[in-house]
Amino acid sequence: MQAQLIALDWGTTSLRAYRLGEHGRVLDHRSLSAGIMQLPTTPRLIAGQACSNGFELAFDEACGDWLDAEPDLPVIACGMVGSAQGWREAAYQETPASVGALSDGLVAVRSVRGVDVHIVPGVLQRSALPNVMRGEETQVLGALDSLSADDAREPLLIGLPGSHSKWVRAVDGCIEHFDTFMTGEVYAALSSHTILGRTMQRNEAFDAAAFDRGVGVSRSPEGAAGPLSTIFSSRTLGLTGVLNGAAQPDYLSGLLIGHEIVALTHLLAQAGRPLPSVVLIGSGPLLERYRRALNANGFAHVTLSEQATERGLWQVAVQAGLMDSLSMAAQRPSHVEN
Amino acid sequence: MQAQLIALDWGTTSLRAYRLGEHGRVLDHRSLSAGIMQLPTTPRLIAGQACSNGFELAFDEACGDWLDAEPDLPVIACGMVGSAQGWREAAYQETPASVGALSDGLVAVRSVRGVDVHIVPGVLQRSALPNVMRGEETQVLGALDSLSADDAREPLLIGLPGSHSKWVRAVDGCIEHFDTFMTGEVYAALSSHTILGRTMQRNEAFDAAAFDRGVGVSRSPEGAAGPLSTIFSSRTLGLTGVLNGAAQPDYLSGLLIGHEIVALTHLLAQAGRPLPSVVLIGSGPLLERYRRALNANGFAHVTLSEQATERGLWQVAVQAGLMDSLSMAAQRPSHVEN
Repeated sequence: MQAQLIALDWGTTSLRAYRLGEHGRVLDHRSLSAGIMQLPTTPRLIAGQACSNGFELAFDEACGDWLDAEPDLPVIACGMVGSAQGWREAAYQETPASVGALSDGLVAVRSVRGVDVHIVPGVLQRSALPNVMRGEETQVLGALDSLSADDAREPLLIGLPGSHSKWVRAVDGCIEHFDTFMTGEVYAALSSHTILGRTMQRNEAFDAAAFDRGVGVSRSPEGAAGPLSTIFSSRTLGLTGVLNGAAQPDYLSGLLIGHEIVALTHLLAQAGRPLPSVVLIGSGPLLERYRRALNANGFAHVTLSEQATERGLWQVAVQAGLMDSLSMAAQRPSHVEN
Repeated sequence: MQAQLIALDWGTTSLRAYRLGEHGRVLDHRSLSAGIMQLPTTPRLIAGQACSNGFELAFDEACGDWLDAEPDLPVIACGMVGSAQGWREAAYQETPASVGALSDGLVAVRSVRGVDVHIVPGVLQRSALPNVMRGEETQVLGALDSLSADDAREPLLIGLPGSHSKWVRAVDGCIEHFDTFMTGEVYAALSSHTILGRTMQRNEAFDAAAFDRGVGVSRSPEGAAGPLSTIFSSRTLGLTGVLNGAAQPDYLSGLLIGHEIVALTHLLAQAGRPLPSVVLIGSGPLLERYRRALNANGFAHVTLSEQATERGLWQVAVQAGLMDSLSMAAQRPSHVEN
């Protein structure tokens, strides 16, 4: 089947490439570790030119063969590739941000093979504590696209768990407000670089009881002490023989994710809002942890959104008319020189 | 002046030694980096014996010459030297803990030179989230000793800022309850091992405005998001040009210490207690930070306690009768064999 768009989800540590057909159907996809902080370094020929630029090399690895086969395919990318440390900086769009605003803000960088890579801008919120995202805005719009028109009109809380979790309030298909929690990165720093890690034993299996115990503490009266204090219990429950080393990692995970969700409920209460429906974007076991913590805190309606990135990139590309030239090219008589 | 006691404050990274005279007056003191995690390793002769035990070596460095001059001096020590990783484990005493309980719990280890080192036990609180301390209990008792009898009878909140801050509720001269906040260690982990450190520039001078801004955020409506979220603003206020790299370390410090103090007020409110008088134990610029954050949160009466460790060790030694043998020795006719 003929492709219509190459869509790249290009973050700090990974680069995912999608070859999309009609209506954004995924025809092919691949995943590379060539995030902008770990680009390839071995020079080679690209389109007949010696090339040592890491972005060019990664781009070629990700989809050079697809472009060799179909050179007219438009290319769109989102994520940290558009940051100041990326291939080309795409200035933040400010909240509220819609699909239209993001497509208006696309910035193109011309690759050595002559193909333009259209980069989706991140979103900046100029609140008292400013907030930024790059990549997640595209996922949010993709998730909204997969909802029914009625559901997308309701106020929704869209969660993107990760190293830096984002919680996005979307109204009427638009990103209105968002908060960031550094939960994943804090967990990693605490486990590897504080005394808490010393008594922990890593294990593969998820210890649901330990996780739920941590979630429970975060919303208990003792949880009012906040994470700076409760985390110490990962150690003291070990010292008192309550929590063995193997249970401590998931206990700490439950504590931190629990504090994140409890804080969300505080922010909602402060704004006088009821608990909204939640859509979680992402994949893997982390989503299950968030679902457990959300349920424990009374969020009754939690759904998962799949293929949000591909859908979002497709939506922005459609809105920007990136595929228009493609259909014109297809209609163009083949003997006309250009 | 004749000494009566050698008192050691022997923690993880440092060893402070005091030679105390009548009424606990400090006659001499010295500070070594020979904490229990960085003991000396070069073997040498002690009391005529080849010795390679790190505790013996550190002990000899700290006060061998004092003991050479006055071999009958009793020795007392507090801190991590009594932990499972220490010279001899001194089992935790449980809250409520008084001077009497700590002196009853002294554990002695006989050094190679024949002198007993009496180790003060730590304190364990078996609450829903257990808490432990080693060394701070002695400081708290020392601080209480320096108060007037009336003040010591009032409920007091005693703060020990540090890598792991302790907040101790003392009633009637006794340690009733305490909480631990890992603020100092979390600050170090965030600064050195997360994205927040990348935009920070270290500087020697204290940036009071940046610190106070962080404290202000922690107690603002945005602060309800908790530290897992607000810390990200150290980065985003940089991205938006509000906070330069040099201001970010003290801003983050203000945020974390601020969240710690705000959490304390929540715990007090939850228990229906008014804001008590606060006594801060410690030294140096960290205390000034805590005083600023306490004042910003309405704690009107904050005083500093000095020489708390020496006083506490002296009190426990007096209660345990460690100096009794010394006065007997002094009274003993010198011709009597023993």
